[in-house]
Amino acid sequence: MNKIAVMGHGVVGSGVVEVFYKNHDSILTKAGADMDIKYILDLREFPETPYADKFIKDFKVIVKDPEVNIVVETMGGLEPAYTFVKQCLEAGKSVVSSNKELVAQKGFELLSIAKEKNVNFLFEASVGGGIPIIRPISQCLAANDITEIAGILNGTTNFILTKIFKDKMDFEKALSLAQSLGYAERDPSADVLGFDSCRKICILAALAFGKHVYPDQVHTEGITEITLADVLYAGSFCSAVKLIGRAKKLTDGRILATVYPAIVSRDSQLSSVDDVFNAVMVRGDATGDVVFYGKGAGKLPTASAVMADVIDCVKHVAARKYLSWDDYTEGYVADYTEDTLALYVCAETKTAEAKEHIKTKLSGVKFLARENQPESEIAFVTGIDSEKNLRQAMNELSDVITVKNTIRVLDI
Amino acid sequence: MNKIAVMGHGVVGSGVVEVFYKNHDSILTKAGADMDIKYILDLREFPETPYADKFIKDFKVIVKDPEVNIVVETMGGLEPAYTFVKQCLEAGKSVVSSNKELVAQKGFELLSIAKEKNVNFLFEASVGGGIPIIRPISQCLAANDITEIAGILNGTTNFILTKIFKDKMDFEKALSLAQSLGYAERDPSADVLGFDSCRKICILAALAFGKHVYPDQVHTEGITEITLADVLYAGSFCSAVKLIGRAKKLTDGRILATVYPAIVSRDSQLSSVDDVFNAVMVRGDATGDVVFYGKGAGKLPTASAVMADVIDCVKHVAARKYLSWDDYTEGYVADYTEDTLALYVCAETKTAEAKEHIKTKLSGVKFLARENQPESEIAFVTGIDSEKNLRQAMNELSDVITVKNTIRVLDI
Repeated sequence: MNKIAVMGHGVVGSGVVEVFYKNHDSILTKAGADMDIKYILDLREFPETPYADKFIKDFKVIVKDPEVNIVVETMGGLEPAYTFVKQCLEAGKSVVSSNKELVAQKGFELLSIAKEKNVNFLFEASVGGGIPIIRPISQCLAANDITEIAGILNGTTNFILTKIFKDKMDFEKALSLAQSLGYAERDPSADVLGFDSCRKICILAALAFGKHVYPDQVHTEGITEITLADVLYAGSFCSAVKLIGRAKKLTDGRILATVYPAIVSRDSQLSSVDDVFNAVMVRGDATGDVVFYGKGAGKLPTASAVMADVIDCVKHVAARKYLSWDDYTEGYVADYTEDTLALYVCAETKTAEAKEHIKTKLSGVKFLARENQPESEIAFVTGIDSEKNLRQAMNELSDVITVKNTIRVLDI
Repeated sequence: MNKIAVMGHGVVGSGVVEVFYKNHDSILTKAGADMDIKYILDLREFPETPYADKFIKDFKVIVKDPEVNIVVETMGGLEPAYTFVKQCLEAGKSVVSSNKELVAQKGFELLSIAKEKNVNFLFEASVGGGIPIIRPISQCLAANDITEIAGILNGTTNFILTKIFKDKMDFEKALSLAQSLGYAERDPSADVLGFDSCRKICILAALAFGKHVYPDQVHTEGITEITLADVLYAGSFCSAVKLIGRAKKLTDGRILATVYPAIVSRDSQLSSVDDVFNAVMVRGDATGDVVFYGKGAGKLPTASAVMADVIDCVKHVAARKYLSWDDYTEGYVADYTEDTLALYVCAETKTAEAKEHIKTKLSGVKFLARENQPESEIAFVTGIDSEKNLRQAMNELSDVITVKNTIRVLDI
């Protein structure tokens, strides 16, 4: 009999308990073995739930109980999740986590302990909520040489960008709407500044390319600078603006890892991913582009991903799954300005000959137009070059234009 | 040392050998064990390949060689693939197959033998080419109660429908183009009549709902009756025409299993899947809609899916994967006319009051218009009802209109 402890009875944790009892019979059939939830760890009281007798407040009960062989961590945040998970693994218990911050910061260390103790540390729910991502990358695409991963990894920002684009809202109004609908938190900074996407791309990069990437190594920009004007210009050349987390292998073995708003062509499957939906594109040498799409967050989708990992733990009680990666090495993540891309630029012109100056300085420039465009406003997309060269050219044009905003244009 | 035999050196089989040697080091790392290809079975000679010494013509060499523990079947067709695979499983060898016809016809029997012999029978490549589908459904979505699966499962027909829609070609011209580009075979019937999609939905239905569905139990219609007029009418209400394979659970435990062209709203992720791409939507009670998108066919995508299964076999040499389903039971697949949907109808009018008659007979009718619409042509979408009732109403309108074509409108 497998005994499970669930640590944290918030949105995801309570969903795990709910999904487990709701789909109990089919889960047991799929797992091929018996299991039950023995403890639910939370400092709060939940006397109204049917599982009130399972609640405990002392973590030590879990770690010391030899009957508990699988621990679900849905507390979120780095501490005390990290300490608890580490102790559980060291005590020879498999751990399933939905905690992206934990995996992005401590994934290498925790996977190493799991390997040493011959137990599982699984975290399908940490990226993409209920969308299967981690397992397909680590298993189904195992025979591929993955060259790039790019995704819309945060539903809140995607909802805001969709509202700006489709309903012509400005950023502030779209954010208020997201907050009133419960899609954004009162302090939305982790979402709108890109930190949430950053943690997820760290995990995806580690899986795809085999080395841990830490959040502070990922060049991260949020969507707070995106204006309605930018979105209108993007629409004028059949493109959408999306917050893209991306990791790309360079020919010398280093990688690029970035999170920033990007202009994506309407031909890309990512451009039609709207509202709170997420999608991840995996580019492999054999498969070409494969895209995974679905709800990236929410109680039940995330809980179902956690339960799938629990089922996998039960099936592999004896034989550990081979999920692992190496630690980061110095110089592994390249500077983001080494990337090759096109740049969208929106600027104030300082001279009537601005267009001519821009054309002299940059090749392949396309000028854009939008409704109600002020006379002194100019917008264009550059040809493809290294970001470093493009930024340099912008500096050299500072006598001619005052840049209001730039957005990278990605071929994904 | 794991020794592999590859049966069939056609498009997929040669791709498997190619991917294996090209990504050899990373495949071995991911598998965590050593392996090599020992035999390639084909009746033809391939003296030019670097693996010429591995070719054999006698299947018995493989089945009798105790060193061979994993057999890859990429021959296609029911025989001799079925006999060979069965003998390999009975001899205690794991088998990986890309053969959708084999799995759709003999999946239950072969999985039962695999279970009995404690070996693996895996077939990720049989549906969706390089798109991970089988494993996500069986593992990642295991904690879900899946209610419906719908997909664009055939690249050839999707290419043809895209050409009709985007380039206003008629069916014959689009088919010729597909043939000249190598996307359609000289005899395109397995694709355009829906048989290929039918085999794939059998496999998906068995995985999702746990019982084998045989191809002859799936109501199957192809795309040969779709006209440019139909596609234009569909476009007029923001929808696309796609060949959809679909399996849906009814409340009484029976299922609907169908393959036919269907009108899909532009709001659906499936509507933007164009050209030779495939996509599968899985609707779960916890996850909501999850969509998997990518190239559904082709040498390297399919080969990479086969190799992923081989890696999984190597990892699970001792511990079998729990992929299995029950056999079909009488009455399990419901008649397709029990489904509830809307119907698009294109017809010749026999009287000037046709519209009035139609409105009297059917509720919620919306009439459609297209460019160059002949005066006697009428097109409309009905309200939602059982297909049986809608067909009955069409019959009762036979004095008023002569139906030219009907297409189901699906909410997927």
